[in-house]
Amino acid sequence: MGNSIVRNYRLPIRIYYEDTDAGGVVYYANYLKFLERARTEWLRSFGFEQDQLREQDGILFAVRSVNINYVQAARFNQQVISCVDDFSLKRASIAVQQSIVMQDGGASVVNAEVNIVCLDCDKFSPKPIPERLYRELLACK
Amino acid sequence: MGNSIVRNYRLPIRIYYEDTDAGGVVYYANYLKFLERARTEWLRSFGFEQDQLREQDGILFAVRSVNINYVQAARFNQQVISCVDDFSLKRASIAVQQSIVMQDGGASVVNAEVNIVCLDCDKFSPKPIPERLYRELLACK
Amino acid sequence: MGNSIVRNYRLPIRIYYEDTDAGGVVYYANYLKFLERARTEWLRSFGFEQDQLREQDGILFAVRSVNINYVQAARFNQQVISCVDDFSLKRASIAVQQSIVMQDGGASVVNAEVNIVCLDCDKFSPKPIPERLYRELLACK
Amino acid sequence: MGNSIVRNYRLPIRIYYEDTDAGGVVYYANYLKFLERARTEWLRSFGFEQDQLREQDGILFAVRSVNINYVQAARFNQQVISCVDDFSLKRASIAVQQSIVMQDGGASVVNAEVNIVCLDCDKFSPKPIPERLYRELLACK
Repeated sequence: MGNSIVRNYRLPIRIYYEDTDAGGVVYYANYLKFLERARTEWLRSFGFEQDQLREQDGILFAVRSVNINYVQAARFNQQVISCVDDFSLKRASIAVQQSIVMQDGGASVVNAEVNIVCLDCDKFSPKPIPERLYRELLACK
Repeated sequence: MGNSIVRNYRLPIRIYYEDTDAGGVVYYANYLKFLERARTEWLRSFGFEQDQLREQDGILFAVRSVNINYVQAARFNQQVISCVDDFSLKRASIAVQQSIVMQDGGASVVNAEVNIVCLDCDKFSPKPIPERLYRELLACK
Repeated sequence: MGNSIVRNYRLPIRIYYEDTDAGGVVYYANYLKFLERARTEWLRSFGFEQDQLREQDGILFAVRSVNINYVQAARFNQQVISCVDDFSLKRASIAVQQSIVMQDGGASVVNAEVNIVCLDCDKFSPKPIPERLYRELLACK
Repeated sequence: MGNSIVRNYRLPIRIYYEDTDAGGVVYYANYLKFLERARTEWLRSFGFEQDQLREQDGILFAVRSVNINYVQAARFNQQVISCVDDFSLKRASIAVQQSIVMQDGGASVVNAEVNIVCLDCDKFSPKPIPERLYRELLACK
């Protein structure tokens, strides 16, 4: 698999009114918020805080592309799980496979691939992922 | 009226799915977005851009308090008008009377008083409203 | 104290990018989302789910007014606690005292009074709070 | 081109604080709101209102997938144009090519393909696009 690395992360999320729309279901853009919450908590689970990465390493992560499929709508008050399922790693980017599933039963809500690039905070140009984070990600194969 | 100053501003806003919730109406927090859009366009109508005020004058406006009454809910696809109705001016703050009304018929949707303070961008401490903006506001009595 | 009733509820909330704005802090409307999450979880802590109240009792809760003071801004990645501090109860409405505080140190972020009315789902007219919920609320004095 | 149909629609959108995040740019999920606003206004430009389609035709449009590339970030106070650039039509679905560009200069902000399916309001199963809308879409080749 080359540098394809696996570590799962699962974040339970409750659906509040703020997340829904007049169709009675989660507004389609809001799933991107849920996906990002899982990525943030996943990095935190390795001990990496994005505000520290910014201050200490001068980097931030920016989303370059999202490819998302909406399988089934989640409704007000339901509980879903936002997942990091897999990822592949390059020196300055990460392609993250993510999904959101129903907590009860595990039915698929959305599937997504999110491509993230590591940027220099000031120049907004690509910059290698900080060494200690890169190593942690490599190590979780 | 002392330094109570009047100038009306009215911004038409269409209700999109993004604004609504599963109750079928605009989510209660989102009216605060509509109110801010009107304040921003009202300042722009005087020739003041908030990004320039930040760069050139080193100030930003922060909301200190909101007192909002929800009179009638707006629904998907309706058109409302977000208004600045009146305001009173101090050296480092503005108390703005705002409302949102239905475009058809003018029925009241929300009424609000929003207190805004002018802050130094770096220190986040109160700072007098820049002179040329302060004068413009005074002049529109 | 008449029918003033006390029960505290505290919900920890992490600040994500979705919550912030270009000022580097939580966007002022988003605190209303945090306040509602706490009210929802507070009702849930009594065993009341809003989707069931809607289906079984034909009621929903609508916000009639919010009076909110912004004391100190919360930033990206910080953890805050959204609280129900106190409430007073009428037959068809609840006035809820709420606050958001920093998890570290407990400094005040916002204080708010939120007035909620119980409405008939179909007619959108005020309707008494369902008996078993009303009694639970009364009982937590 | 078979049933590939072209009609451009361009909706100017101002970036407000509500749209941005602590990175100083538009939050990545919010571009999906801008894309939807353009699709809604595009349908409206044909004389079709989604609330009427729902009541009269018993249908709604749901997003099945989004493939979005983020080219350049938009910042607070900038003006962008959200575009419908092209689309292909099937009996129960539309694949819409969209983009968002800077109003000054036309530089690319995002490119996206959004797949929309026409659903029966009650059963949430695919249903042919109402005849008069389908014909209008076909006609704009």
